[in-house]
Amino acid sequence: MKQSQPYLLTPGPLTTSDATKEAMLADWGSWDQDFNAITRDVCERLLAMANASDTHVCVPMQGSGSFSVEATLGTLVPKDGKVLVLINGAYGKRIAQSLEYIGRDYAVIDKGDYEPPRGDEVRLALAEDPAITHVAVVYCETSSGILNPIDEIAAVVAEAGKRLLIDAMSAFGALPVDAKTLPFEAVISAANKCIEGVPGFGYAIVRRDSLEQCKGRAHSLCLDLYEQWRYMEATGQWRFTPPTHVIVAFQQALNEHAQEGGCEGRLARYTRNRDQMVNGMRAMGFATLLEDQWLSPIITTFMSPTDPAFEFKTFYNLLKEKGLIIYPGKLTEAESFRVGCIGQLYEPQINALLEAVAQTLAQMNITLKAVA
Amino acid sequence: MKQSQPYLLTPGPLTTSDATKEAMLADWGSWDQDFNAITRDVCERLLAMANASDTHVCVPMQGSGSFSVEATLGTLVPKDGKVLVLINGAYGKRIAQSLEYIGRDYAVIDKGDYEPPRGDEVRLALAEDPAITHVAVVYCETSSGILNPIDEIAAVVAEAGKRLLIDAMSAFGALPVDAKTLPFEAVISAANKCIEGVPGFGYAIVRRDSLEQCKGRAHSLCLDLYEQWRYMEATGQWRFTPPTHVIVAFQQALNEHAQEGGCEGRLARYTRNRDQMVNGMRAMGFATLLEDQWLSPIITTFMSPTDPAFEFKTFYNLLKEKGLIIYPGKLTEAESFRVGCIGQLYEPQINALLEAVAQTLAQMNITLKAVA
Ligand SMILES: Cc1ncc(COP(=O)(O)O)c(C=O)c1O
Ligand SMILES: Cc1ncc(COP(=O)(O)O)c(C=O)c1O
Repeated sequence: MKQSQPYLLTPGPLTTSDATKEAMLADWGSWDQDFNAITRDVCERLLAMANASDTHVCVPMQGSGSFSVEATLGTLVPKDGKVLVLINGAYGKRIAQSLEYIGRDYAVIDKGDYEPPRGDEVRLALAEDPAITHVAVVYCETSSGILNPIDEIAAVVAEAGKRLLIDAMSAFGALPVDAKTLPFEAVISAANKCIEGVPGFGYAIVRRDSLEQCKGRAHSLCLDLYEQWRYMEATGQWRFTPPTHVIVAFQQALNEHAQEGGCEGRLARYTRNRDQMVNGMRAMGFATLLEDQWLSPIITTFMSPTDPAFEFKTFYNLLKEKGLIIYPGKLTEAESFRVGCIGQLYEPQINALLEAVAQTLAQMNITLKAVA
Repeated sequence: MKQSQPYLLTPGPLTTSDATKEAMLADWGSWDQDFNAITRDVCERLLAMANASDTHVCVPMQGSGSFSVEATLGTLVPKDGKVLVLINGAYGKRIAQSLEYIGRDYAVIDKGDYEPPRGDEVRLALAEDPAITHVAVVYCETSSGILNPIDEIAAVVAEAGKRLLIDAMSAFGALPVDAKTLPFEAVISAANKCIEGVPGFGYAIVRRDSLEQCKGRAHSLCLDLYEQWRYMEATGQWRFTPPTHVIVAFQQALNEHAQEGGCEGRLARYTRNRDQMVNGMRAMGFATLLEDQWLSPIITTFMSPTDPAFEFKTFYNLLKEKGLIIYPGKLTEAESFRVGCIGQLYEPQINALLEAVAQTLAQMNITLKAVA
């Protein structure tokens, strides 16, 4: 598991292992059974990872993660359904936007840039509007890096007899998702997040008994999750051309995920990365947007220093020259930037980041006061 | 430009060069300007290839080729538009099916499995139904391998003042597409066809003045070609996560395409491949579905021998053991199989195919009579 520069301290596409990339050095016939076996293996392992093999099915979908989210919404929410969307950032907003396009009714609880949606307010909203059939929530809202209280929300949704759709894009593969204890209708993620594959497809883990009811519902031929599933069940093949190389790379990424101890092993490393990074950045005088309780081990938002000499573009480029790529902020109100903990990043890379940040501040003539 | 086994004699995913695959051995930040420059370069070169730089724009779209077709239909055809779909195989049918999902009105001329749609019948259909706003046609209908008479059809559509949408999936990059002489509204293709990239995205080359009118039309957030274009114009980035490795590989594939002499060079090689293959197969006693006039230099349908000892699965597996992957037929009425000429295939590979077919027939105890 070698890594190569520049290191991507981003929420994905991220730094993948060389072995994962090298798995792309062959061409595969998309109709061939050797390739079909890889697809089947990948789907089975994803289901097992969610402890959902006997209740759910895994349906992969070409495109980026948003394609899988839209496919899930368009296929699972009936035309007369209504979705309560819990929003605290860009990806919650995107769910509402997808529903708007698809023409499904929805209501929102919008907590602004980074406040977590809580169980009590969801309970209240569900009690007030019996038309709601589904609740959609983002597990780790990557736009701030907040870890939403998914267990609390799932319990309330189950108690009200509603169906939960979880955008677990940047969470699945590291943060716990257990179908036996977390009641969900669908969990969605993509290849290039905590499993550390390369980008090109996403997937939804969906209750089998629900998906069986969804024939003819989808708004889009390509994003029809039901037909995608049926075709794959019937033939072992993808309905339309799959990103063959990306899928083969993903299988290798899954091997490495297992070798690291599965979700637990990965969560442990990401947590170490985050703690090392946050401690180091705070020691230099940077402040995190969120309190410790809400900090995800995926990506962390830091407030930009108020020093007028700080300019993100310059900061970014100077770090890039040192082989480290960070990510811009996505807050509407305050200047910020984000640093990811996921991908092939270990202690030496986080050390390198902290050194590079210190050097860059010096180059930019910025002095910060350490945060207590 | 080395090649590796097994050789894919398929319509894509196909055998790509080692250099194309090796371009995937690095990770790229999807937000970073180095990556944006690659996207821009790729789009500019595709536009130039269609001689369309001053009239059209190139909009890439995540997913397989069908995603780009659906995005183009959903974005360009207004809610009150009507499409005349020319069908002579599976991909024409898929266009009609997409329109059905999207809820756009359409009429069809269905010629069955492999008869070409002709200019005269299109002229008649357009005269009879003035509600028609667009005509959709498949350039090379890959399901039979027929090369549809695109110039003839385009002339009739232009003459009637209608807009032409061309699914040029398996044609673009080899067969001529020149916006100055072929009037089209949109031409659609994908990474893994005649440009010989790996699969993971498609693209539409669309008239700029038309696309500018399309805000708010699309049925899908992800497949909104207008928003995809605007975002990329405004930021240089893809709207949602791009398949970074696939795009970088595509740039390398474009380099090799140019080195081979662009579309003309490639068409010359594919034509040589086809002639060598068709002659060799006929000499062994196989018959092509189509007459020479309609044979594309992309993929050829051969009728399965009537000898009861011939079974496609066995034939396929015995060829695969010899390092050659062919493709099943897609005719509704007759048993057939397909052999592709595109990808990193040269004289030695076609020779290898012909030898392997001869050997396989012997293994299967099948004797054919040479076709005159
Ligand atoms: C929580 C969440 N949802 C959705 C997405 C969208 O994914 P994509 O950019 O692959 O469409 C992301 C991407 O980072 C994400 O973090
Ligand atoms: C003419 C044509 N149209 C559409 C497609 C669909 O492409 P995809 O399988 O990439 O969705 C193909 C695939 O071979 C094709 O040949």
